[in-house]
Amino acid sequence: MNNAIDLAEKLISAPSVTPATGLVFDVMEAMLEPLGFEVHRFVKGEEPDGPVENLFAIRRGPEGSKHFAFAGHLDVVPPGEGWTSAPFAPEQRGDLLYGRGAVDMKGSIASMVAAMADVPADAGTVSFIITGDEEGPAVYGTRALIDFMKESGDTPDLCLVGEPTSVNQLGDMIKIGRRGSVNIWIEVEGTQGHVAYPHLADNPLPKLVAILAELDALVLDEGTEWFQPSNLEITDLEVGNPAHNVIPAKATARISIRFNDTHSGASLSELVGAIAERHGGAAKPIISGEPFLTPPGDFSRIVAEAVKAETGLDPEPSTTGGTSDARFLRAVCPVIEFGLCNATMHKRDEAVAMEDLQTLARIYARIAKAVLSA
Amino acid sequence: MNNAIDLAEKLISAPSVTPATGLVFDVMEAMLEPLGFEVHRFVKGEEPDGPVENLFAIRRGPEGSKHFAFAGHLDVVPPGEGWTSAPFAPEQRGDLLYGRGAVDMKGSIASMVAAMADVPADAGTVSFIITGDEEGPAVYGTRALIDFMKESGDTPDLCLVGEPTSVNQLGDMIKIGRRGSVNIWIEVEGTQGHVAYPHLADNPLPKLVAILAELDALVLDEGTEWFQPSNLEITDLEVGNPAHNVIPAKATARISIRFNDTHSGASLSELVGAIAERHGGAAKPIISGEPFLTPPGDFSRIVAEAVKAETGLDPEPSTTGGTSDARFLRAVCPVIEFGLCNATMHKRDEAVAMEDLQTLARIYARIAKAVLSA
Repeated sequence: MNNAIDLAEKLISAPSVTPATGLVFDVMEAMLEPLGFEVHRFVKGEEPDGPVENLFAIRRGPEGSKHFAFAGHLDVVPPGEGWTSAPFAPEQRGDLLYGRGAVDMKGSIASMVAAMADVPADAGTVSFIITGDEEGPAVYGTRALIDFMKESGDTPDLCLVGEPTSVNQLGDMIKIGRRGSVNIWIEVEGTQGHVAYPHLADNPLPKLVAILAELDALVLDEGTEWFQPSNLEITDLEVGNPAHNVIPAKATARISIRFNDTHSGASLSELVGAIAERHGGAAKPIISGEPFLTPPGDFSRIVAEAVKAETGLDPEPSTTGGTSDARFLRAVCPVIEFGLCNATMHKRDEAVAMEDLQTLARIYARIAKAVLSA
Repeated sequence: MNNAIDLAEKLISAPSVTPATGLVFDVMEAMLEPLGFEVHRFVKGEEPDGPVENLFAIRRGPEGSKHFAFAGHLDVVPPGEGWTSAPFAPEQRGDLLYGRGAVDMKGSIASMVAAMADVPADAGTVSFIITGDEEGPAVYGTRALIDFMKESGDTPDLCLVGEPTSVNQLGDMIKIGRRGSVNIWIEVEGTQGHVAYPHLADNPLPKLVAILAELDALVLDEGTEWFQPSNLEITDLEVGNPAHNVIPAKATARISIRFNDTHSGASLSELVGAIAERHGGAAKPIISGEPFLTPPGDFSRIVAEAVKAETGLDPEPSTTGGTSDARFLRAVCPVIEFGLCNATMHKRDEAVAMEDLQTLARIYARIAKAVLSA
């Protein structure tokens, strides 16, 4: 087995803040080709959200064999300030390997690649679905890879996304679904005027406050067997009125709802829109993902057994947390997410336990072999 | 009598957006000196709120005679875009004279100067208290003029401020007081976090919404004999959170209260502060003026009779509207405000009826003569 730690260091050494292209994909290609993968790369999109590089690599098994895919992203969030060692110069200190992307998710991708040395070429078809645009708007990334696979007829039967799903110990949690996500902009228009003559103006702010108070009091649901209750957060307010004696003409708020499969982006947009309209406002939603669930069954059992064999833990099947590119891949085939501990992701001094990288490689190898032989 | 229209045109021709200095005061001095006034000018303050020019002009009557003051400002609000004729190039069209400051308040000041031709030098002492900083923060203007008068021992017995108090017809309203004004910034601090993990964050926005909903529902009072009910307006909201998936750490709102003499700036600050604190927020007030009243009596009767004699109207004694420099002058002597129609003040194509300028000059002359002989 290739050393997952070495591979992780090589990937971390190639800076790749979203949107990512170039060097980090060269490194990735150089790892996969010796393992017998056919590597396809393409760049898509323009500034500011692009250009984005995508990589699809496939190692075909015997005619008619199953197709199992690893999916992930090589782009990382900006490192920010205050790191102990340079974020793109991987450094081992004690049991940990430090660097941006160590857990989210260059480390996981390194473990996937390392796992391949242990998966015989005749076991079946294995592919890597790797984008440079997961941490950003995800416009030119995994969606484009799905189009590419569909056109080439290489869509997988099952897919494992390597997002850092573990919480306290590697293996304590897998994701069998994700909540949906919708952002809604609420705008109330009024009539500007002088505060001393309020009867000549129409202040939009009390209306916005009434809308937000009503939204904040909503109980969307109580949760389901596999999902926590849907949650609404007010995330921004904007008036931008520097004049102390002026009643402004317009007020805007933004809310973010993370919701389970008792709702859809459309049903929530309608609900919020009705409340906004009742108070004289308007709502404009942008749905970034619908909820999905890969109901517990054969696939989750395979993943759980592989985790248990290497860690002794029974992973909790969860649908908590943010969105990931699984929201796109689930339209192609059943998707489960499993990866490293997420405590340091997106933070300074992001770090992974080096032993976890090697354990994860063994778990990924077990999953691939079990899926392909099932 | 000097022609008030000519004088208004000369003043409008000297651009003087707040803070004003220089040319417009040269024009003013050149008008007053031939009328026997001793003119004092001084510049005060630094950028951004200064430098501000102030002018105090006095024509002394016989020893022991009464001292009546006209007060006003030569600065104007910025003209903005879209004027039919250039804002600082006065233009007569039909019955109207157009230009920034035509009604607020170079027109009134022109009428004051024109009135002086009709007020004999031996009638008593007359002064002009003229600043270049009324439309701005008023830090270096009338307050400095009051200090100047106190030092020179030339404080007036009665003062008329020429703000545009008329509404539909010249003479329909005088101001016998003003409401107080306080702006209060309300801030709620929370803990930033990811919208997908709200239990790890503390969203300040629902708290701010609760504070504002409670403030918006307040009934401060029912008004008094001379004052309308106090009024609270929410004037700004500020979070400034561009990240859709982030719960922000802080949220701010600003309110503006115009209040009558059943409150003080301090009592309202305390009330709002208590509501903010109950929801975990904090309030920071800036009091820009306390309410005041020049109770109806001899002075208001003189003004009303002069108005009636020239216009046939019985002016309504009012305390409505915004603040003015009367809030400072009232500490020196009783103050009443009376001036042109305010419909176009602060707007593009600000304009005054030329006949009103002449009528106003005659009213001002009547007031000065009656006050000095009373």
